[in-house]
Amino acid sequence: MNYCFGVDVGGTGIKLGLFDAGGTLLDQWEIKTHVENEGIAILPDIAKTIADKMIEKKICKEEIVGIGVGVPAPVTEEGIVNGSANLGWSYKEVKKELEALTGLSAVIGNDANVAALGEMWKGGGKSQKNMVMVTLGTGVGGGIIVGGRILIGAHGAGGEIGHLKVDYEELELCGCGKQGCLEQYTSATGIVRIGKQILHAEKAHTILDPEQLSAKSIFDAVKAGDEVAIKIAIKFGDYLGKGLSDIATLVDPAVFVIGGGVSKAGEVLLRYIEGPFREHAFFANVDAKFVLATLGNDAGIYGSAKMVLED
Amino acid sequence: MNYCFGVDVGGTGIKLGLFDAGGTLLDQWEIKTHVENEGIAILPDIAKTIADKMIEKKICKEEIVGIGVGVPAPVTEEGIVNGSANLGWSYKEVKKELEALTGLSAVIGNDANVAALGEMWKGGGKSQKNMVMVTLGTGVGGGIIVGGRILIGAHGAGGEIGHLKVDYEELELCGCGKQGCLEQYTSATGIVRIGKQILHAEKAHTILDPEQLSAKSIFDAVKAGDEVAIKIAIKFGDYLGKGLSDIATLVDPAVFVIGGGVSKAGEVLLRYIEGPFREHAFFANVDAKFVLATLGNDAGIYGSAKMVLED
Repeated sequence: MNYCFGVDVGGTGIKLGLFDAGGTLLDQWEIKTHVENEGIAILPDIAKTIADKMIEKKICKEEIVGIGVGVPAPVTEEGIVNGSANLGWSYKEVKKELEALTGLSAVIGNDANVAALGEMWKGGGKSQKNMVMVTLGTGVGGGIIVGGRILIGAHGAGGEIGHLKVDYEELELCGCGKQGCLEQYTSATGIVRIGKQILHAEKAHTILDPEQLSAKSIFDAVKAGDEVAIKIAIKFGDYLGKGLSDIATLVDPAVFVIGGGVSKAGEVLLRYIEGPFREHAFFANVDAKFVLATLGNDAGIYGSAKMVLED
Repeated sequence: MNYCFGVDVGGTGIKLGLFDAGGTLLDQWEIKTHVENEGIAILPDIAKTIADKMIEKKICKEEIVGIGVGVPAPVTEEGIVNGSANLGWSYKEVKKELEALTGLSAVIGNDANVAALGEMWKGGGKSQKNMVMVTLGTGVGGGIIVGGRILIGAHGAGGEIGHLKVDYEELELCGCGKQGCLEQYTSATGIVRIGKQILHAEKAHTILDPEQLSAKSIFDAVKAGDEVAIKIAIKFGDYLGKGLSDIATLVDPAVFVIGGGVSKAGEVLLRYIEGPFREHAFFANVDAKFVLATLGNDAGIYGSAKMVLED
């Protein structure tokens, strides 16, 4: 029997999964992320918990295909990270260090890209070789899968969907220092930002409470038929649909998988994205499909495992 | 000795090259494209001229690695074209038909994508695995190379750079039926279009003749220090730099290779593109390089050959 480990490193916790070589998740657990001292303990902690799991499950080294790891930073093809604010890392040869610590083969990827690969393998994008995942969370992340593989890029920064420019007239700054990024309109915080602008300008009656505005409250109100909430959803969908049509023009995916906290609104979300997408899309891409992500927080461990199994 | 053929099919002529397996171009020639009768003769003509060349050069079938072909249409990974206006083709299984006609292995790709691969292999993008080629001709074409391979996409329509939206306020229609496409401002015809708008509004003295305006006359005037021409070049560069910064956000190339007729203006062109690019680019991509294409009209036969040799 052959096995592999999928690891998803976050700023507060590290999720781990033990998979068989066929891709079945056999066990999953979580440990704390120790970011203190420039995150020096993170890789040793991962090596230790994997060694412990191998003893517990009576698995020997020869049975392990490898360890896949997703981290919140750009990662080069060589498994090198040039700094991760969330983990406290500066330059770090993650692949080399983890292989030295474990004696096992390791593949490292960016967490958003890895989650996209997970959704392609076992989630909303199942059986698609060309797909784009869009993660609508606090920010907007994403991953581009081309011919079944992650688009990594020259600096490991491929698929930075949230920083595509969709409004050249924007005056407020994005966290990246530029203006008009997709993230400024379609992340959980971006939706609240445009929601407040609309609420401020709007005279119509609404059930929305400006003090308690959230992506959830807005889409709950949309489902209740609230006119003002619907205006916010239309603006959100217009920006996202335009941005995704530009992505399609370049990478021509068969399917867009929409995930992240905002996607908990469900199918109603897709309706507001698909219309503007089809209106703006280049004719060759107009039939791209839209689906919701299905793996939730497990996308990272699935995608990490897949990186090992496909290598 | 092993050989391969690189074929670049255009609307008026078909360019062919005979390469050795190391990638040295041994011979090149051209035949006419017979587009009449839905382009039914095109593939038999290619098979015939290749057979003739093999006799002339005393090469036997066993020595041929394969035939690479670039065509002016989206091409799926399976070598299928769903219609090419330039060749008169409707649905056509190009790979299958050409293999049946020649008894040789064939790989088919979109001409712009194939040219990008050629520039990566032997041209301006040499030794780069992640690059984007932008062809500024009558239209704007392009090719995205990721990890050393063409980004093909689900419909074979990857890298349609010319139809990225860069101006949501545009009122004139692009050839594709949408508005605000990069092609509308940065193709040879696009530059003339914005040039006429600026000439119309401008009172300053200029050596430009509105009746004889061309990409060449504009960039010649830029080199002569003409103020109005410089304004046109700034507008052109601003659109292209913005568009390329969006491309970089998604595909993170190490280098942009600028080709096509407009690029004959030379290095001066790059200066007007690089500034706006670096101003708008996401921080991870800001050091991407800009170079001119070097293979000219031979990029297609080189890239076609490379498709065969890498397969």
